[in-house]
Amino acid sequence: MIKTDALIIGGSAAGITTGITIRRHYPGAKITLVRKEQQVLIPCGIPYIFGTVGSTDNNLIPDAVLSKNDIDLIVDEVTSIDREAKTIATAGGETIGYEKLFLATGSVPLVPPLPGVDLEGVFSIKKDVPYLNRLLAALDEAKDVVIIGGGFIGLEMADECKKRGLNVTVVELLPHCLFLVFDEHVCVRMEEKLAERGIKVVTNNKATAILGDGKVEGVKLESGEELKADVVIFGIGVRPNVKLAQDAGLRIREQRDIWVDRYMRTSDDDIFAVGDCAAKTNFITNKPSTLRLASIATIEARIAGANFGELRRENVGAIGVFSTKIGGLSLGMAGMRAKTAQEAGLDVVVGTAETVNRHPGGMPGAALMRVDLVFHKWSCKLIGGQVSGGDSVGEFVNIVAAAIAAGVTADEVATFQMGTHPALTASCIAYPLVNAAELALKQMR
Amino acid sequence: MIKTDALIIGGSAAGITTGITIRRHYPGAKITLVRKEQQVLIPCGIPYIFGTVGSTDNNLIPDAVLSKNDIDLIVDEVTSIDREAKTIATAGGETIGYEKLFLATGSVPLVPPLPGVDLEGVFSIKKDVPYLNRLLAALDEAKDVVIIGGGFIGLEMADECKKRGLNVTVVELLPHCLFLVFDEHVCVRMEEKLAERGIKVVTNNKATAILGDGKVEGVKLESGEELKADVVIFGIGVRPNVKLAQDAGLRIREQRDIWVDRYMRTSDDDIFAVGDCAAKTNFITNKPSTLRLASIATIEARIAGANFGELRRENVGAIGVFSTKIGGLSLGMAGMRAKTAQEAGLDVVVGTAETVNRHPGGMPGAALMRVDLVFHKWSCKLIGGQVSGGDSVGEFVNIVAAAIAAGVTADEVATFQMGTHPALTASCIAYPLVNAAELALKQMR
Repeated sequence: MIKTDALIIGGSAAGITTGITIRRHYPGAKITLVRKEQQVLIPCGIPYIFGTVGSTDNNLIPDAVLSKNDIDLIVDEVTSIDREAKTIATAGGETIGYEKLFLATGSVPLVPPLPGVDLEGVFSIKKDVPYLNRLLAALDEAKDVVIIGGGFIGLEMADECKKRGLNVTVVELLPHCLFLVFDEHVCVRMEEKLAERGIKVVTNNKATAILGDGKVEGVKLESGEELKADVVIFGIGVRPNVKLAQDAGLRIREQRDIWVDRYMRTSDDDIFAVGDCAAKTNFITNKPSTLRLASIATIEARIAGANFGELRRENVGAIGVFSTKIGGLSLGMAGMRAKTAQEAGLDVVVGTAETVNRHPGGMPGAALMRVDLVFHKWSCKLIGGQVSGGDSVGEFVNIVAAAIAAGVTADEVATFQMGTHPALTASCIAYPLVNAAELALKQMR
Repeated sequence: MIKTDALIIGGSAAGITTGITIRRHYPGAKITLVRKEQQVLIPCGIPYIFGTVGSTDNNLIPDAVLSKNDIDLIVDEVTSIDREAKTIATAGGETIGYEKLFLATGSVPLVPPLPGVDLEGVFSIKKDVPYLNRLLAALDEAKDVVIIGGGFIGLEMADECKKRGLNVTVVELLPHCLFLVFDEHVCVRMEEKLAERGIKVVTNNKATAILGDGKVEGVKLESGEELKADVVIFGIGVRPNVKLAQDAGLRIREQRDIWVDRYMRTSDDDIFAVGDCAAKTNFITNKPSTLRLASIATIEARIAGANFGELRRENVGAIGVFSTKIGGLSLGMAGMRAKTAQEAGLDVVVGTAETVNRHPGGMPGAALMRVDLVFHKWSCKLIGGQVSGGDSVGEFVNIVAAAIAAGVTADEVATFQMGTHPALTASCIAYPLVNAAELALKQMR
């Protein structure tokens, strides 16, 4: 039997970051990571395998990140946890004893139980190298691709498939793509980009069957329309992978994820859970959240890892910070938008500013940036922001995130001390974060 | 005699933003702005006139920003302030009465009293369209340009002059370019870029005379060396323009700028001062600061403008946030670096992280980003950060600024809730802000 101090199950972003964090905080600890995959994919990079970077090999997290942090790696599948003995058993017949166990078992893509989902040529986005290599091979032979789900991963996949020269159609249940995350004006701006790129979008509709005989030939929609397809890809969300935890009798939330406290401990004090499998709470409302993001996973890992030896860090709840770039348009979102805030019973004010993200506008790389900030009217605190425009959106939304985390008020955002430069940002007069806050303030009085 | 409620003297970033802010906070106020320039330049954009954007016309702030905020513009030179009568007099013979006066008189470039500084072909960076058009014309005829001063403006000018195909030499007094702002490793990285671009840099040296007969022919250095030059440009700093304030008997600081309180009021309660002419205090140390930045000017304007009718906002002191892009390398700085913090008597810890600003590294636009964060050891608070790498530096340094302003600790930075995306940022595992904080924490224990 192997004995270790910190045993991590799962080798993706949450598992790796848990290991690194334990090593940084507890230099003497013996750390062991067990995962079932031979190779680990960069999770958010998966869509880019199919276009920009061209292969799964170009989207791997090297195992050096483990070895250089002195984390022992075992490639095997964990089959059960014995909480009393404080051991786990593996498919390979190994037993491993632990002081503290960290569950980073992630999530699996949802596939609805439609007729035809088992046909050849039907895929979802699994974090699995051989599986994605099969998808790559299928796309090499394909002409028509239907992507079911117009969220982040669906649109990123659509954009990358288009780069391969395929006919791409996206099917979205809601009235707009990305409509769960962004306001309508952002969704419409993105849909215009998709149209420019020649990507067909079918909204307010859903697949009722996958058609074909052995191999996929098309998708039948609720509207009756049939779409031709050589490959169908589902991108409709994920389900937390909680089987091990459930079998071990750990508390599972109504949201089907592993209950954790603010220290990331499960209902067993010696077992932590982090990442997509772990329960999340909304930073603003303190209500259960079903967000699943690699970035949240690593933050939880930095909390849980630091708590290995003593309780050093608390989880204040997930703000939820996203960004993407599709069809050359970058979008970012942090915290709550007005609609979700209002649904949660919060009285909010929105300030909007639009400007070019360089100055003067003739500087290279200039793109129109729009910022919508959401403030809680009673406390005047910033609770959310949406950003769209050029590549600077990626870090700009993190300024919004930093301000939300710090609980700053509209007045503080309006006097935010930013740096500006002609080649890199909007001008200091037009800086959209500040102006959006100032315009929100006008509505508060 | 004209009568107005809010009278602003100065039409650059500080003056304009003061006017906009007053309008937003006090919709009914009569606002008048007096400036002596026919046209107003984007101050930070001036170097780009000489390369990237190609003309002064492409670097103007349009007067529409005033008219659409219902701000009356008078182009004239203010010659005196009568504090008792609450009026100002202009060179054009006008008298204007005010309720509140806002001095936004800016700064003028320093030119040392060297032999030959009055020769034809010797310039500084004045915010003056006809003057800069003469510099443009001189550069059209030039082959060899010597730039005196290796700070931001000097290097930006050097880079833009190089884009015109000129032979460019920069003369810097200190051992490195940008050495007043950045640590040596950043300066060296930039100097390598300058060398790649074919820009010659002479450090540890200074001009002792400008040579020539009527027209500049060269620069004599302290080392004895003589540099050939058709054009010489001084970029060695600015002096606050406080003549009007001084003549009016307002209190002037030892640093030769106009004393102001935390509300941006001068020693006369009815007169505010903002921007380069106004006194600054360091956010971290609360000691006098001599920073002069357009971004600080606009922040002060947002404070002073809001205080027109009642005291709504306080200045918490200048953090100082810079960014630039020279020779394709972007640099950013917020707050204090270790050296200046130590000189100010603060015990600090530095955490450094380096990673590529995309993930995987094969994504387009990937550049190596280095982040150095400075934490105050006693309070664990973030007090500064330096960033170098690709264009995302421009907004990344503003995340650092937001965190400094919020007074967050190393532990809070280490669990910062950021959004990450392959096409826009570093990975969530390697996110350099978080990792730099985690590595600083290790040194605090």
